[in-house]
Amino acid sequence: MNNHNQDEIRIGMIGFGYIASCVYRLIQEQNDYIASKIGKRLHIAKIADKDANKLQKDLPGLSAIAQSRDAADILEDPDIDIVVELIGGIVPAYDFVSKALEGGKYVVTANKDLIANKGKKLFDLAQQANVDILFEASVCGGIPIIGPLKSSLASNHISKIVGVVNGTTNYILTRMEKDKLSFDQALRMAQDLGYAERDPSADIEGYDAACKLAILSSIAFNSRVVLDDVYREGITSIKDCDINNAREMGYRIKLLAIGRQKEGKITVKVHPALVPQGHILASIEDTYNAVYVYGNYVDQVMSYGRGAGDRPTASSVVGDIIKIARRFDRDRKGPVYGCSCSEHKELAHMDDDVSKFYLLMDVVDKPGVLAKIARVFGDYSVSIQSMIQKQAEKEGTARLIFITHEVLNKNLDRSMHQVANLDVVQEVLSVIRVEDLN
Amino acid sequence: MNNHNQDEIRIGMIGFGYIASCVYRLIQEQNDYIASKIGKRLHIAKIADKDANKLQKDLPGLSAIAQSRDAADILEDPDIDIVVELIGGIVPAYDFVSKALEGGKYVVTANKDLIANKGKKLFDLAQQANVDILFEASVCGGIPIIGPLKSSLASNHISKIVGVVNGTTNYILTRMEKDKLSFDQALRMAQDLGYAERDPSADIEGYDAACKLAILSSIAFNSRVVLDDVYREGITSIKDCDINNAREMGYRIKLLAIGRQKEGKITVKVHPALVPQGHILASIEDTYNAVYVYGNYVDQVMSYGRGAGDRPTASSVVGDIIKIARRFDRDRKGPVYGCSCSEHKELAHMDDDVSKFYLLMDVVDKPGVLAKIARVFGDYSVSIQSMIQKQAEKEGTARLIFITHEVLNKNLDRSMHQVANLDVVQEVLSVIRVEDLN
Repeated sequence: MNNHNQDEIRIGMIGFGYIASCVYRLIQEQNDYIASKIGKRLHIAKIADKDANKLQKDLPGLSAIAQSRDAADILEDPDIDIVVELIGGIVPAYDFVSKALEGGKYVVTANKDLIANKGKKLFDLAQQANVDILFEASVCGGIPIIGPLKSSLASNHISKIVGVVNGTTNYILTRMEKDKLSFDQALRMAQDLGYAERDPSADIEGYDAACKLAILSSIAFNSRVVLDDVYREGITSIKDCDINNAREMGYRIKLLAIGRQKEGKITVKVHPALVPQGHILASIEDTYNAVYVYGNYVDQVMSYGRGAGDRPTASSVVGDIIKIARRFDRDRKGPVYGCSCSEHKELAHMDDDVSKFYLLMDVVDKPGVLAKIARVFGDYSVSIQSMIQKQAEKEGTARLIFITHEVLNKNLDRSMHQVANLDVVQEVLSVIRVEDLN
Repeated sequence: MNNHNQDEIRIGMIGFGYIASCVYRLIQEQNDYIASKIGKRLHIAKIADKDANKLQKDLPGLSAIAQSRDAADILEDPDIDIVVELIGGIVPAYDFVSKALEGGKYVVTANKDLIANKGKKLFDLAQQANVDILFEASVCGGIPIIGPLKSSLASNHISKIVGVVNGTTNYILTRMEKDKLSFDQALRMAQDLGYAERDPSADIEGYDAACKLAILSSIAFNSRVVLDDVYREGITSIKDCDINNAREMGYRIKLLAIGRQKEGKITVKVHPALVPQGHILASIEDTYNAVYVYGNYVDQVMSYGRGAGDRPTASSVVGDIIKIARRFDRDRKGPVYGCSCSEHKELAHMDDDVSKFYLLMDVVDKPGVLAKIARVFGDYSVSIQSMIQKQAEKEGTARLIFITHEVLNKNLDRSMHQVANLDVVQEVLSVIRVEDLN
């Protein structure tokens, strides 16, 4: 059926947009270099894209490669060893990837929606066919994080991962702080620069980060976590005054993706948080990403780099191709890493999650107000670590900033519901978590 | 010859000190967990240490393992699949590792002296025997950096790596800055805490960092770099006033390991440098390490974590064992990564190295002095970016701080030789490089 050289790995690319053409360029430009390291040549044998215009891109050597508008031409070709799926989204990527795996082909993808929603099914198919699906590029672009979790760090029990995993929101928060912009102004700037989509909701509402967290948590905790498992708050309600207040109190605001396991239960949540200025995660700026991992032997490690962009993402895609190529043997297929979700851990309920909180509210500026608020906090075991009173803009109004000690989510919610209804409280402006990261 | 199960990997450990007993503990404690991920069990079959006391350590299960004071018992045992060498130093480790490789055994080591000095010979032996030698733990303890360079980032042409790779010196510099200590005080503190040896020269003179840089550069630039190739300055001449001056000018002082390739030539150097406070490498504190990599597709990535300590180092040793175990097949040995030093690049001469410099000198406090100094700088094309004059402690003396623009090393050296001999210059106190890292 296949009489090609073992030293040539035949690749079929499905989808030929922004990332895929960069993967193509990387392999064209640096194939000799790659071959000198791994002793095998990568050969892009076929490219499929339903849009004929994408195929006609003016790239060197492209005309010599078999092109098709039908992915089946790749999926049904017994001579293709690795399918690189770069169309994104679940439909029809799921079908294509399933067929590739069923046909005994290895798969490399950058598709976070696919892995975060349909991972289990795909890993099962890969196992049945004795191949593998690699997806380093689906989380944080060029940053090597899946690979290290699967190999160098694999012996560690991971208790926590904390990441700044969405470049768009990190850019917006950085610009709000550094350029004193409002959220809307910073969002527009991100859109003008192409960092945010016309419809920015996947980024600013935290869906993108939640997908990445689901993928990372599944690997870190050896138990499948899907997108719907992730508690999610975006950054749309972050005000410039929150950013200023945070800075004055020694914090910066970041959109964090946090996965944690404790007593056999997993917590997975994406939300903005105040992070201590001295912590290295606070220094991740603009579109950079970072993932912090706490392992029981390695202690703390972090990977940092460009979380998006065609070239960094292509670096990870080709890195995965190289991992497969190194172990590739047509006569003895097998996993590169395989799926490690052998456990079934329970999800902790967010009601029982414990955090510190930053609270911002406008109140009537008269004696006795603080006592009324403090009484409500006391009733719900919300203990205050610090409080600052500031002049509010409106006459007769004071602005209060609280940082709580650690408190149960449900207690904080109930207390704030009651605080908001006090006659002396004009408006609760912000409720944001504080993560000390220790 | 060997009728053991393919699903059990038999390990022989040579050397059973601080790191090795932690590797032992990790495998004993977490073998089920590791097996659940890789589908194979790690079995420590034999331990050898010339010191019988080390073998008698009171560790659970140790008495059931074959122990020897002679490494040959492991090296000549056909049933051992992987030799873990953790004795350190070149003699007799080099002989042991050579014999292990010649005997077709895989090797895992944390021995940076061995790899930085004898790497080529060992990689040749590994290739001849169709096995591999892995050494993640030899550079920066628990931080995954060799693995990512060898796989996820392997398609990138690397132009530069910059690391804070020695925890002891980073601890000393951090304490000098934060606790306002002198070098000697901070060194004593590091010794009291066990971060520095009684004889601290390997750390504070930069040898340790130079070994790590030689190893990283060989991989990054695909051309063998050995310890002797590395230009090296330690931190012993860093004064507390340098640290203060640096901070006032927006910098922090770090001991950097820098590898760079440009126009086919490699520069490898370890020296203290002023790093901009806003750069993430400036925020690496205490005993933490970080390695920053510049690749032509991935752009900038950094790995950060604990650069030393028994548990982080054990994490990397077992990570390497896992990489071998995953691909292990007694009937078809082969490299995990193999050596990629297929090129022979020239070393650039340090005379031609270009840097910015921070210069500190005491001069006679009278008009015309600056003109005399500036004339010398002008003669050697040393261009000044900024100058600050401070009150010196001695009457009639002024203290000058210069930051130069980029200048050829040899021009800076010659100009400073002449400046030091000017009658108006009392003493040149410090000459330290400035790295803007952009």
